[in-house]
Amino acid sequence: MTTTLPATLNRARELVWPALRLAVDSLEPDLRAVAVQHFGWDEDGGGGGKAVRPALALASAAAAGAAPETGVDGAVAVELVHNFSLLHDDIMDRDQERHHRPTAWTVFGEARAILAGDALANLSTQVLLRRETPEAMRAASMLVDATARMIAGQSEDMSREGRLGVRIEEVIAMHAAKTGALLSCASSIGAVLAGAGEDVVRRLAAFGIQVGIAFQAVDDQLGIWGRPELTGKPTWNDLRQRKSSLPVVAALDTKCDEAERLRDLLSKPDLAEAEIAEAAELVEACGGRRFAAEEAERRMQLALRELEQAPIEPAAREELEGLARFIVEREF
Amino acid sequence: MTTTLPATLNRARELVWPALRLAVDSLEPDLRAVAVQHFGWDEDGGGGGKAVRPALALASAAAAGAAPETGVDGAVAVELVHNFSLLHDDIMDRDQERHHRPTAWTVFGEARAILAGDALANLSTQVLLRRETPEAMRAASMLVDATARMIAGQSEDMSREGRLGVRIEEVIAMHAAKTGALLSCASSIGAVLAGAGEDVVRRLAAFGIQVGIAFQAVDDQLGIWGRPELTGKPTWNDLRQRKSSLPVVAALDTKCDEAERLRDLLSKPDLAEAEIAEAAELVEACGGRRFAAEEAERRMQLALRELEQAPIEPAAREELEGLARFIVEREF
Repeated sequence: MTTTLPATLNRARELVWPALRLAVDSLEPDLRAVAVQHFGWDEDGGGGGKAVRPALALASAAAAGAAPETGVDGAVAVELVHNFSLLHDDIMDRDQERHHRPTAWTVFGEARAILAGDALANLSTQVLLRRETPEAMRAASMLVDATARMIAGQSEDMSREGRLGVRIEEVIAMHAAKTGALLSCASSIGAVLAGAGEDVVRRLAAFGIQVGIAFQAVDDQLGIWGRPELTGKPTWNDLRQRKSSLPVVAALDTKCDEAERLRDLLSKPDLAEAEIAEAAELVEACGGRRFAAEEAERRMQLALRELEQAPIEPAAREELEGLARFIVEREF
Repeated sequence: MTTTLPATLNRARELVWPALRLAVDSLEPDLRAVAVQHFGWDEDGGGGGKAVRPALALASAAAAGAAPETGVDGAVAVELVHNFSLLHDDIMDRDQERHHRPTAWTVFGEARAILAGDALANLSTQVLLRRETPEAMRAASMLVDATARMIAGQSEDMSREGRLGVRIEEVIAMHAAKTGALLSCASSIGAVLAGAGEDVVRRLAAFGIQVGIAFQAVDDQLGIWGRPELTGKPTWNDLRQRKSSLPVVAALDTKCDEAERLRDLLSKPDLAEAEIAEAAELVEACGGRRFAAEEAERRMQLALRELEQAPIEPAAREELEGLARFIVEREF
């Protein structure tokens, strides 16, 4: 795994970044400028990120027995949707930095960042529909369905912020929508473009959903106990923001004695630092942290089971498994 | 014309509003709530507007010899794109009211209004791709291309605000993109869904572009000299906001003596009310108002010529002409 993974990601960057750049270059100059800053192409090193979604798209084309290149349009489209959502999320959350760089809206103003996000979202469908094939149409259809679920999940997440009494299944369903839908699309869009059968596409899509839920279960732990120097956010950040994240919801759901005290704390209008620290301890004492860790592991197993049952090449299966582990087992 | 027009608009409302409502009802509840308020469906009278774009879409299906119903998906999709752009424009422009009602972002906050706009934009493509036909794919492809041009035009408009030395052709190209592209799509998408030939589609699309430019030429006059009780905006509003609108750009482009004084005025960082009034007079004295009026008339003639040359039914031609006149010759 360790030897194939860097090759998989490098291949994705080599094949997809130029095509992505070409698509973005077709935008009106002032919109392009926002996108270029957002992608980090204006800096040394070229920006663009780790390319996990593009790598999934290419691997899914390979899984269907096609050349990885067959998945390039799908990879570009998914990456455009992902980045449109980041552009708009940063405005909605008033985030000033992403990966230690200023967010686009702080540089270009809100209006331009909203419009650039709109442009990337629309471009994602254009890239696919440009090829007038039934496969491209099916891929575009899958992409807009995934985008709809992602947006709905984002809205559910927004509505739950600061609300107590959220159920575990609600959080997981929200994670499946907000993060799982697009990873699911990334994991199967290459296969769709390669003309794969329904059984392959369905298994790969189900794999991606589970990877998304596993990723969020890890991300929710890091939101409370992550190391600030790695996550770029203060410790207990999600507790401070009253996020109904998986460890908190799982802790509140237990019959443990400390759950009552935790509920009281989280109901207070303002929390002192010592109270936030106490809340973090209570979440852990009530098993919230363990629950999230076990959920991540459980979902990863479900993801791998989908891969095993998918009628695909062993090499492609290994590649997809490597990508799933890379996405979920990150250190920050 | 006067007798067929109300029937055309009524038919559009009867056929399209229920389908639009059904599509919006599929959204996640909190996103749906924003859309419902934006469309005015939460008020007596039902909201929804005059339905000119839906009417164009149905008339274009009829022009291709199909039942108007054939254009319904296209009408819904175009209306969704139009309303996504209104939702985001109101945030970008910080507009508090639209048609004497509070804008969505002032009611639900910016984050929800951004997300609801994203949801409507994405839904527009979903509505079309749901039908897995080559015609639907062609319509979806046309819609995303039109949306791309609309977004690019909006960006150009933003970049020109407050800039002197803009050329007349630049303003008209921007109008063609910002307003013409979606009207062009509305005017031909029904024909595309009806499987019309390239010649019909191209003529109808060209008709829509010209209607859009004519509309903007009128709108730019109203932005300066419109009656506030009808437009809902103060007189000389576009001058106050330093918009490079058609009358201003045309006035500055002349060799007339007053153009120099106008340029000086518009270069000042702040303008007193008396100076704004003077600027409005100078624009008129230099022929800017007349130029815009003549441009509107010229573009309307070009639109009608496209209709005449399109191989379509006379009844459909009459309907499209009635809609074009209604769009351009509005009193507010």
